[in-house]
Amino acid sequence: MADSVPTEQKVESVAEDLQNLVLGPDGEPLSKKALKKLEKEREKERRKQERAAELAAEKAAREANVVDYAKDNYGKLEMNQSSSFEGTKFTTVRDLETAQVGSVVTVIARVQTTRPTGAKMCFLVLREGTSTVQALVSVNSDSISKQMVKFADTISAESLVRVTGVVVKPDEIVKSCTVGNVELHISTLFITSEATSRIPFSMEDATRPEIEYTKDPLLVKVNLDTRLDNRVIDLRTITNNAIFRLQAAVCKLFREFLDNRDFVEIHSPKIISSASEGGANVFQVSYFKRFAYLAQSPQFYKQMCISSDFGAVYEIAPVFRAEDSNTHRHMTEYIGLDLEMSFKEHYHEVMYMIADLFIFIFKELEKRYSHEISIIQRQYPFEPIKYSEKPLKLEFKDAVALLREAGIEVDDYEDLSTANERILGGLVREKYNTDFYMLDKFPTKIRPFYTMPDKENPLYSNSYDFFIRGEEIMSGAQRVHDADFLESRIRECGVAPATMSDYVNAFRYGCSPHAGGGVGLERVIMLYFNLGNIRRASLFPRDPKRLDP
Amino acid sequence: MADSVPTEQKVESVAEDLQNLVLGPDGEPLSKKALKKLEKEREKERRKQERAAELAAEKAAREANVVDYAKDNYGKLEMNQSSSFEGTKFTTVRDLETAQVGSVVTVIARVQTTRPTGAKMCFLVLREGTSTVQALVSVNSDSISKQMVKFADTISAESLVRVTGVVVKPDEIVKSCTVGNVELHISTLFITSEATSRIPFSMEDATRPEIEYTKDPLLVKVNLDTRLDNRVIDLRTITNNAIFRLQAAVCKLFREFLDNRDFVEIHSPKIISSASEGGANVFQVSYFKRFAYLAQSPQFYKQMCISSDFGAVYEIAPVFRAEDSNTHRHMTEYIGLDLEMSFKEHYHEVMYMIADLFIFIFKELEKRYSHEISIIQRQYPFEPIKYSEKPLKLEFKDAVALLREAGIEVDDYEDLSTANERILGGLVREKYNTDFYMLDKFPTKIRPFYTMPDKENPLYSNSYDFFIRGEEIMSGAQRVHDADFLESRIRECGVAPATMSDYVNAFRYGCSPHAGGGVGLERVIMLYFNLGNIRRASLFPRDPKRLDP
Repeated sequence: MADSVPTEQKVESVAEDLQNLVLGPDGEPLSKKALKKLEKEREKERRKQERAAELAAEKAAREANVVDYAKDNYGKLEMNQSSSFEGTKFTTVRDLETAQVGSVVTVIARVQTTRPTGAKMCFLVLREGTSTVQALVSVNSDSISKQMVKFADTISAESLVRVTGVVVKPDEIVKSCTVGNVELHISTLFITSEATSRIPFSMEDATRPEIEYTKDPLLVKVNLDTRLDNRVIDLRTITNNAIFRLQAAVCKLFREFLDNRDFVEIHSPKIISSASEGGANVFQVSYFKRFAYLAQSPQFYKQMCISSDFGAVYEIAPVFRAEDSNTHRHMTEYIGLDLEMSFKEHYHEVMYMIADLFIFIFKELEKRYSHEISIIQRQYPFEPIKYSEKPLKLEFKDAVALLREAGIEVDDYEDLSTANERILGGLVREKYNTDFYMLDKFPTKIRPFYTMPDKENPLYSNSYDFFIRGEEIMSGAQRVHDADFLESRIRECGVAPATMSDYVNAFRYGCSPHAGGGVGLERVIMLYFNLGNIRRASLFPRDPKRLDP
Repeated sequence: MADSVPTEQKVESVAEDLQNLVLGPDGEPLSKKALKKLEKEREKERRKQERAAELAAEKAAREANVVDYAKDNYGKLEMNQSSSFEGTKFTTVRDLETAQVGSVVTVIARVQTTRPTGAKMCFLVLREGTSTVQALVSVNSDSISKQMVKFADTISAESLVRVTGVVVKPDEIVKSCTVGNVELHISTLFITSEATSRIPFSMEDATRPEIEYTKDPLLVKVNLDTRLDNRVIDLRTITNNAIFRLQAAVCKLFREFLDNRDFVEIHSPKIISSASEGGANVFQVSYFKRFAYLAQSPQFYKQMCISSDFGAVYEIAPVFRAEDSNTHRHMTEYIGLDLEMSFKEHYHEVMYMIADLFIFIFKELEKRYSHEISIIQRQYPFEPIKYSEKPLKLEFKDAVALLREAGIEVDDYEDLSTANERILGGLVREKYNTDFYMLDKFPTKIRPFYTMPDKENPLYSNSYDFFIRGEEIMSGAQRVHDADFLESRIRECGVAPATMSDYVNAFRYGCSPHAGGGVGLERVIMLYFNLGNIRRASLFPRDPKRLDP
């Protein structure tokens, strides 16, 4: 899964020119044939730059002699310092899809590529957010000159332009753009903000559908480290724009569902005085003349809010884990979606509400964000998640039985390994036709001390995990809400209750029974869209080796 | 404004008994008369406890001989371990207001107080969230016994009870409760979670309207430090429950407004590799074998997201300031509401949108949260904020002129002091009849290096502050979106551009002009509700001296 590349594999001669390390899709250094191909591309690029320089020189020479009849229709605008406001009406690239053919529109967009055909025409791909459209500058006798076409071709990739043009139906659908049913015939073309540095990788390479690599393994692939080193550029791809719009959508839907059930959003402190929940893997902070720590979860605080009579609370906030894990699914900082809810009679009130919450999110993503989902699908194809309206609930012991039936040795009271969770996911999908299910009643000894044991059989507990595609996405439980019992549980776990007295004391003044859970936002996004690496679901990921940008 | 109390002022004999320090509303130690009153209360409390013990003994003695015909109608339930689910229908205390008189309801609520009248009746105040109601246990011949009435009276304050009863119209409105038009005549009464420790202060004292202290300065006042030391109890007051519901509401309205304008919610990293924006007042974190820092604001990241073509972004997240300030308006950790937006022509597009955002929040708070606002008003009376639909915009130089007219000496290009901001607030209110206004075009030299100067007069800049009640609540500006110009500005400010190369480089590949701003959530709440101290607007506040609970 790791897209990182060991230094010794670097192909220096290629890398130094392209600024980013290029490997075949199998992670191996390129073959001679591939290197040749790259050399050819390099040559092509060099020629393009030479031609651009020639054109600029030609232009300057001519401008001294020839009057350019299109000269007011193109050029570079000076830096916008808000010196005027004209109230121009702008269209977005995405809205061009439904714009009337024949209408004149103005857009501000990036020049993703320029492709001249002869001296009289230049095609541009314009990009804005999650959408691209084809545009065309074509010489005519009164308003578009050869010089203007040349200007269009020399615009550096990723520059922002302000374009006015006519919406035209093309001869055939432009498959390479997201808006394929129309193109834009440009009448004016101004650079509003120029890309003055050469981009570290092309947007086509960064947006190429995974499937194309299976057809042509020699295609340039931008590896994940290169992307993350140049994250501001990488985030510009329509795919990444869509991923982070969907990340925001998951938060929005999470809140919408819970707000409608009278949950209160809380903000618990991230700087805490002592290492919570046992103390391993905590970041230490210099706090004036003492030390403090970064919160590993809002667990204690959300429970304290229950004791403070907030009824039901949620929090969306960063959590910090000082774990030296370098895997596809660990980060040192991620966004936790946490909730906690007092219940009246049984923790299943909470558990089934959480199931409904996930189903709501799945459904509404499909309903409201089909455009963004289709954009991600272009690059990273995935099967939609299977789930049923009535969520499947299995008990831990059922899972043990299912695995044993399949010939896998598992212990009654030990946690499932990640590998066995995956196998279980497959078995459940086969038997119940769902990618989404809950596992209830985990063994008490593998859950935290604040988990409420089952009354009938204290070897099991009132705790649950939620799974999608065979990976756990949420873990939760009924908590111990009785201070004396909590204290005895803490002692049983070999911890001194004094280290968490604020927490324990919160329950000495009466507290409702309550249950809750926590989800990692990036994890949900990674699993739902099958992205393969959690860093693809984090704007600016943090791991033991990465703190920049 | 500070509610803190120097140690030498403590009145030990009183404090040790009441567990919290008691002062008159003027912050002075209590007079002899007041001490006497307190002694009397202490004596009363002692007698109450003695009586409770007697009653318990009596009850035990009788139970040996007498059959209690009500014995199945009251008692203490065992700890809820989710061993059964009956699907009981519960009503909330708040909904009792509209419940039908004569109907039988079941609620789970806290016992705030018990008050027996003779041996045959006991009044309870039940509390749930932001609502209280009066309830009554009264002896009858078949289902409520004297023992049951005694049981009701001995329930420790803050215990949670499950109560079934009839909704009855009282003889007169119960003014001391938020639900005053009905009371509850109890038929069954069970403790679901008992308060086993004595609460550090009474809920009446913690909820008493400020105005009552002006009438009777001898009333017990719970000071802020005592509240914060016992925050889980303190947050239970109906006032605090309402404050934090409104805090959540402000976030909800902020997002609702921006989501409707196609903003994308982002989550930027809080652990960063170098001290941002200059570097003072940053918390240092031990990060594996190196050091890292806590982000002081998402400024650079939200701008980078603009360069990544997100169009418009916002973030609600903790920000960290290692400033050793111990005032009524500083905290070391608070919640930032940040936004950044690319604009087409002029930064006023953004500035007026932010004004509309605030007006939307003010209006919808009044419309949707009148109940919560009225609860806060009971304890902390405040005048509603005056604002007009068309927001007032003044320029910095207009403010200077206004202050000079009022005889106050101010410099053309120096920042306004907090005191002068307050005076300005008064002058503006007088002249324009508004508590809410924008100040535009601040002098360039008092704004950060990334602020765009005004094109006509570079001594001023395209920057603005928003004010309510004479205090700044949001600061913002058009940012420099050109890398070369940004670099020259950084140098002019005496900083080495290399220390922020990721930030500057983000603008080398073309970037839209953009503007934005940042608000402190707790500050908005403090100013809107006139709470006087920012800690009252933070769940678990953090300052240089406070890291617990």
